Amino acid sequence: MRTDMLQQILLELNGSTADIEASALISTDGLMMQSALPQGMDEDRVGAMSAALLSLGDRAVKELARGTLQRVLLQGERGYVIMSAAGQEAVLTVLAKPSAKLGLIFLDMRRAAESLAKLI
Amino acid sequence: MRTDMLQQILLELNGSTADIEASALISTDGLMMQSALPQGMDEDRVGAMSAALLSLGDRAVKELARGTLQRVLLQGERGYVIMSAAGQEAVLTVLAKPSAKLGLIFLDMRRAAESLAKLI
Repeated sequence: MRTDMLQQILLELNGSTADIEASALISTDGLMMQSALPQGMDEDRVGAMSAALLSLGDRAVKELARGTLQRVLLQGERGYVIMSAAGQEAVLTVLAKPSAKLGLIFLDMRRAAESLAKLI
Repeated sequence: MRTDMLQQILLELNGSTADIEASALISTDGLMMQSALPQGMDEDRVGAMSAALLSLGDRAVKELARGTLQRVLLQGERGYVIMSAAGQEAVLTVLAKPSAKLGLIFLDMRRAAESLAKLI
């Protein structure tokens, strides 16, 4: 089943480095498609925040003449929220620890996003 | 004058690499404090987008248990919007070209943010 394959890619992404705590695939209109979240993390909350960031991020890059949105990164003192386009229809959201190495996470996310985009 | 000193730091930041196109200092309540923008770029637009991103980014990192917001990055196909805390009271916003090397921009921004924070 396709959902199993999407789930598998998210689980592999979470397992690619100990710094990735959670990942989710969200449609560009802000609805959850698939998620691999740790126990106690609320799927609706991740979906809602991703959708809001996607919407504002898209508007901000357009208003500031930066073209079409490709990636959003929020760095908090307790970790990262990173969103990356997965094809035209979806966005991959990752929550990572503060110790995360961004170059590595971006690479792993790009590979996962390409695999996810082929399935949706 | 203090505004001259703030302006000087922003101009030096813009000059530190050809990839930085514009920079601005915005209070954490979303008001423009100082800006060094190219001709034709609207100060109000940069301020409004920065304020909106700051507000949503702050909420998102809190809701997703990432602590206090320290940095926001939007990557569009035509460049970057990067925001970084400048002390407790202000945020430094930078617009950069797609060719920008993030490691270098982050370093230059951190130095500028530290200098700006001492003046405000």
